[in-house]
Amino acid sequence: MFLSKLFLPITKNLPSDAKIKSHQLMLRAGMIKQSSAGIYSWLPLGLKVMKKIEQVVREEQNKIGAQELLMPTIQSADLWKESGRYNDYGEEMLRIKDRQGREMLYGPTNEELITDIFRSSIKSYKALPQMLYHIQWKFRDEIRPRFGVMRCREFFMKDAYSFDLNDTNAEISYNKMFFSYLKTFKRLGLQAIPMSADTGPIGGDLSHEFIILAETGESKIYADKNIFNINIENYDFEKESLKKMRTDYSSLYAVTDEKFEKKNFDKEVPKKNQVMTKGIEVGHIFYFGDKYSDPLNCFVDNQDGKKNSIKMGSYGIGVSRLVGAIIEAKYENEIMKWPKSVSPYDVVIIPSLSKNNIENLTKSIKIYQYLKKQNIDVLLDDVDESMSQKFKKHDLIGVPYQIIVGSNSTDTKFEFKEVNSASSILSLDEIKLKLKN
Amino acid sequence: MFLSKLFLPITKNLPSDAKIKSHQLMLRAGMIKQSSAGIYSWLPLGLKVMKKIEQVVREEQNKIGAQELLMPTIQSADLWKESGRYNDYGEEMLRIKDRQGREMLYGPTNEELITDIFRSSIKSYKALPQMLYHIQWKFRDEIRPRFGVMRCREFFMKDAYSFDLNDTNAEISYNKMFFSYLKTFKRLGLQAIPMSADTGPIGGDLSHEFIILAETGESKIYADKNIFNINIENYDFEKESLKKMRTDYSSLYAVTDEKFEKKNFDKEVPKKNQVMTKGIEVGHIFYFGDKYSDPLNCFVDNQDGKKNSIKMGSYGIGVSRLVGAIIEAKYENEIMKWPKSVSPYDVVIIPSLSKNNIENLTKSIKIYQYLKKQNIDVLLDDVDESMSQKFKKHDLIGVPYQIIVGSNSTDTKFEFKEVNSASSILSLDEIKLKLKN
Repeated sequence: MFLSKLFLPITKNLPSDAKIKSHQLMLRAGMIKQSSAGIYSWLPLGLKVMKKIEQVVREEQNKIGAQELLMPTIQSADLWKESGRYNDYGEEMLRIKDRQGREMLYGPTNEELITDIFRSSIKSYKALPQMLYHIQWKFRDEIRPRFGVMRCREFFMKDAYSFDLNDTNAEISYNKMFFSYLKTFKRLGLQAIPMSADTGPIGGDLSHEFIILAETGESKIYADKNIFNINIENYDFEKESLKKMRTDYSSLYAVTDEKFEKKNFDKEVPKKNQVMTKGIEVGHIFYFGDKYSDPLNCFVDNQDGKKNSIKMGSYGIGVSRLVGAIIEAKYENEIMKWPKSVSPYDVVIIPSLSKNNIENLTKSIKIYQYLKKQNIDVLLDDVDESMSQKFKKHDLIGVPYQIIVGSNSTDTKFEFKEVNSASSILSLDEIKLKLKN
Repeated sequence: MFLSKLFLPITKNLPSDAKIKSHQLMLRAGMIKQSSAGIYSWLPLGLKVMKKIEQVVREEQNKIGAQELLMPTIQSADLWKESGRYNDYGEEMLRIKDRQGREMLYGPTNEELITDIFRSSIKSYKALPQMLYHIQWKFRDEIRPRFGVMRCREFFMKDAYSFDLNDTNAEISYNKMFFSYLKTFKRLGLQAIPMSADTGPIGGDLSHEFIILAETGESKIYADKNIFNINIENYDFEKESLKKMRTDYSSLYAVTDEKFEKKNFDKEVPKKNQVMTKGIEVGHIFYFGDKYSDPLNCFVDNQDGKKNSIKMGSYGIGVSRLVGAIIEAKYENEIMKWPKSVSPYDVVIIPSLSKNNIENLTKSIKIYQYLKKQNIDVLLDDVDESMSQKFKKHDLIGVPYQIIVGSNSTDTKFEFKEVNSASSILSLDEIKLKLKN
């Protein structure tokens, strides 16, 4: 993509409610535009990042055998009356009457709908276990939407659901998701810590929030610092190893303020290991057994030919929220720096341009064509601006690698740098290797 | 994917309102499940097909320089009051009040919102032309949703918008999209005919519907049969060639019943060339100049430093509807046959299984692993059923290629067939070549 053609409305005008860095930077870099309170349009640069995050989440869900489907955004109230949540859910649920006067709602979550799909599809224990997920827009009518895409009303979320015959098997599914989540966040360049959590309106008795550290986080967290040293790569996708992973995490104190009790913290964690800081919730998983399957009559026939209610869990990742969360975790001063896995472009070519000399632009186009052929997603900054303006802009956009075509370049070697690092003079082949590894 | 693991609730029970073939087949093959009137969940098989269609549409939009963004589903009523459409739109618009009592709506289309994004982003004629698109869920509260995904309430649509300085340039944008649409439908295995159309609630004075022939279509069409012989490959993406394409199409009569007048039809088309049949609308494009930009004050500064209102067009493709439309165009008896470009799997392996002999299954797993390594998306039918049950099921699912592992196979050669064609005995390398070309 040539930058002069990219729909990228970079701006300096920030609304007064843009209080945290990710919100400010996303607006400034033209990644999003507010459409109404807590509702955003995703402009090309923002959408590219969100789509990359979505794809990482999808791949990691597929790897553990979860299958993708897609439930609609608008649901009938009937199922929610069946589960008993319609009246309980409160004002965060966007309630709608259609032209026939039927009570509908914009799904804030999908336990009811997936249970309905499951009960009408699966009749025998032989088809278990199952894990199903979708990545879909949700709506929660927050009283005070804020922090840009971090706490908005219309948001993009992956929610998965597991279906098992009994608690023992259900815990295996829970552990698989727990494992998958840690892998997912790692690929996104984040260290997420699973923390014992309350279950809130989803219900159930086992739950973990996945929290990344960030000064601007809304969650206060209390943890044993050793929990940050557990490496998910030391476990594999096998029942006993997953069990050990859970035991290892559970043995170290880590809770959010909801579950915090100073007495326990001091008892379980030596003073020198106590970490008290803030974080952002990027995922939340729940085990709630038959909380939904029972009222919705979701049964299978078991080995003995008897009705067996289904044990379910649900597993959420905030895909749109992650765009903001990654910025919060990674930014330095005014510089966004995307992890390679989600960067909107792999590399940006920045030529020094002047009206009387098109040599640098010509060179840059050649580099562009070469890298494109290698399947590398390149941005070429062909806008007529000074180099200092360009550098400032690219700090903001945050593409992690730059090829600078100016006085330090020859016909075959070019200045290559990773943002915030020293540059080196490399051939195109060497640049390709750097970008591909 | 192993079929025994696939979440594929094949069913024989059809609701009485499933009157057309695509609706019946999609329900029977477990591609969709109705969630409420005119609202569907997309199960794994259906979602795979829809995602492939979405990707073809996206690639063809990108090829002509349109840029993807994503607008939210829920919009404020304010913009629609500004454009004057809020009261006009009628009951098909799903109107919503949020918890603060603000008037919102579920977007049935996005002219207002994209105009708002554009007016706040682009200030100079130098940034024109622009084409922006998104692929997003829409809602139209049909009084009588029917025909499954063909006329449902919540539907998935690609809508693009063009922005130009004057009518002449705007027509070039219109022609580019016209070209892109014909290319898109061709890749989807469809012959779509552009027909002069009314503009309806979108407005404007130039409009084409893209219609594919199908007996079950809701649109009556009247055309000169020569229009079916125009080949889009004879044109290229260059101003004059695009103009010629438009002229060539315009010179041949082709209208839907809205615009049909018998007198003109008889005058312009010799009797022997008259085609009267039915079709399905799969795309609709509009040119409406400043219908939205004017009331919404969407201007740029032109060469003379004066305010210049923007000339806009909009361009829709029904992505979810296309799943049904492709079935309607392609099915034979009870057999779905997906075009290669959108088939849920590239090939299915069908071993003859018996409890005492696992040889065919073992062979099949080897083939499966070989093809997977070649990046071919394979389904392996490991379900314990008779071959006749299997064949019936795979006719229904519609994967276009089959590898049959039974009495006609040796250790290194296997029965390979395209659905509805004769089979041949091929080595794995030969099969790979057939699938890859």
